[in-house]
Amino acid sequence: MIPTLAWTPEGVRFIDQTKLPLEESYVLATTYEQVADVIVTMVVRGAPAIGVSAAYGVALGALRTTAASVPEFAPEFQRICARLAGTRPTAVNLFWAIDRMKRLFANLTLSGAALAQIKDRLLAEAHAMYDEDIAACKAMGAFGGALLPQEAGVLTHCNAGALATCGYGTALGVIRAAVEQGKRIHVFADETRPFLQGARLTAWELMADGIPTTVICDNMAASLMHAGRIQAVVVGADRIAANGDVANKIGTYNVAILAREHGIPFYVAAPWSTIDTATATGDEIPIEERSPVEVTHHGGRQLTPNGVGICNPAFDVTPSKYVTAIITERGLLRAPFDESLRQMELVARPC
Amino acid sequence: MIPTLAWTPEGVRFIDQTKLPLEESYVLATTYEQVADVIVTMVVRGAPAIGVSAAYGVALGALRTTAASVPEFAPEFQRICARLAGTRPTAVNLFWAIDRMKRLFANLTLSGAALAQIKDRLLAEAHAMYDEDIAACKAMGAFGGALLPQEAGVLTHCNAGALATCGYGTALGVIRAAVEQGKRIHVFADETRPFLQGARLTAWELMADGIPTTVICDNMAASLMHAGRIQAVVVGADRIAANGDVANKIGTYNVAILAREHGIPFYVAAPWSTIDTATATGDEIPIEERSPVEVTHHGGRQLTPNGVGICNPAFDVTPSKYVTAIITERGLLRAPFDESLRQMELVARPC
Repeated sequence: MIPTLAWTPEGVRFIDQTKLPLEESYVLATTYEQVADVIVTMVVRGAPAIGVSAAYGVALGALRTTAASVPEFAPEFQRICARLAGTRPTAVNLFWAIDRMKRLFANLTLSGAALAQIKDRLLAEAHAMYDEDIAACKAMGAFGGALLPQEAGVLTHCNAGALATCGYGTALGVIRAAVEQGKRIHVFADETRPFLQGARLTAWELMADGIPTTVICDNMAASLMHAGRIQAVVVGADRIAANGDVANKIGTYNVAILAREHGIPFYVAAPWSTIDTATATGDEIPIEERSPVEVTHHGGRQLTPNGVGICNPAFDVTPSKYVTAIITERGLLRAPFDESLRQMELVARPC
Repeated sequence: MIPTLAWTPEGVRFIDQTKLPLEESYVLATTYEQVADVIVTMVVRGAPAIGVSAAYGVALGALRTTAASVPEFAPEFQRICARLAGTRPTAVNLFWAIDRMKRLFANLTLSGAALAQIKDRLLAEAHAMYDEDIAACKAMGAFGGALLPQEAGVLTHCNAGALATCGYGTALGVIRAAVEQGKRIHVFADETRPFLQGARLTAWELMADGIPTTVICDNMAASLMHAGRIQAVVVGADRIAANGDVANKIGTYNVAILAREHGIPFYVAAPWSTIDTATATGDEIPIEERSPVEVTHHGGRQLTPNGVGICNPAFDVTPSKYVTAIITERGLLRAPFDESLRQMELVARPC
């Protein structure tokens, strides 16, 4: 089991994803501010993982408070939540997790719970979200693994794996499940510039599991599709709008277009917490622009001439028309997505 | 004028494109073997530039021979040509240039020329090819510049610039000409993994000319197209088959599909020497597979986990159906390309 994040008596322990694959080191966040820093600097990344990280951050903030009473703690609780919510704008799981902690806090406060009890319950809620995340990945694996052919080259972009969740993964969970079902899967991992989550993280965790993996540059996908080496694409998501538009790592939209052009199914695997029915379409999803340095430098070494312009959007939006199916822990969603989303929300209540 | 390659009394001087943009240094090749090495290691790259480099390599081999007569030199001449032809398989300009030198040698031999005269004529032929290359780029610029809107974001992939030719460039020549025609062009340069010709070379030479340039990762193109920031794509070519299929730097095929999906014209700028009517379709073009180290390492620093599989095809093939027009020094080619190619070959005889 890959230890993406883990609660310890001292705080939250994260595997440092900026150092993988060459170095397996850990960062211990003992305060909620440190959890926020760990999210901003992408020591931990991946929509489901940052959601649960933020929940632990909120719990940690409560446990570390010097406030003596609930009324004294209440404004501090709001500051803790705001700090964690301000770390990254695109993945909705972050806001979903913080909102869930806020709702719990409000309910406990209304019911007259003592501060000590609130602290216990906030930590228990974070633990529950951690466990639910792994269970959701396993369920997505079962639904999604069945979609893949008995023998297939599967392209994935970025890292939607154990390292992007509390374990098992969303897109890579689907691949793991297919392998466990006895299917012969060869993974092609887009290296995923500029942060190289595919080359570094997806390759690392699939090799650890013995799943055959080939890293390609992002610009090689069409060539491999044309050559018949890719039978399916599976990616994760950072936010899914009410109409099924998918925000995910920059480059996902490219892959979706290329897949459709070659008649290859394009699957998105994401837990229900990634679905944001309050956002009507992908156009409304805020896209984080990250530092140009991620593009201009690697390992401290400069790649580009001084002063050149740089774009570095961390995400793009894939219109739902390119999506063959969305794989959730509740089952598969297919077009029209607004309709199938509404139906599944009615059938299966949020946990 | 960017000194991509230059004849000197000591041999051929190349700007070292593996060191740009951080270091402007030069490599002097004093033997044909050194010219071959310079092509293999991509100190010089770009289809037109390696064609002319090979021609100078042949001339250099002749000038350096210790043979005392034409019959004594003839087998050595064949070895020189074979060594230079064995450097890189995809760009047809290399074989075109060497064949032209071979034809000249054969004609001079048949006409009873002395070895000294043959040496002079081989060098003069290389000089002529150098001059013709720049003239072709200027002509392509005039034809292609007119295609671009008065104000446009133009995406280019790899480096089809002054550094890929003897000067001015093919795709970047088109952009330079548009700018000289008073058009307001903002260039988006795909960084072009793994060798980063866009981030390093295209950015460097366009900045030197004061043309506004933004470097993007290869996976950001679709997102920018969707946002309406790109009005045209212009790329170079390494070989164009008789049916108009275009072999060019890996990732070109991706860009072509994305352009068509967004209704953006996709132009290919290439001199006539890039057209290989002996190759019926793109499927027959040999694609060079380069060392995995270009993908796994940057600047000596490892990116990927040990032992992971790697693909590193240096080129891909864009089927002609994605090509809006091919810009040559003789004019524009449009679909059906087999037909327009034949017609233009009849109208304008090879120089």
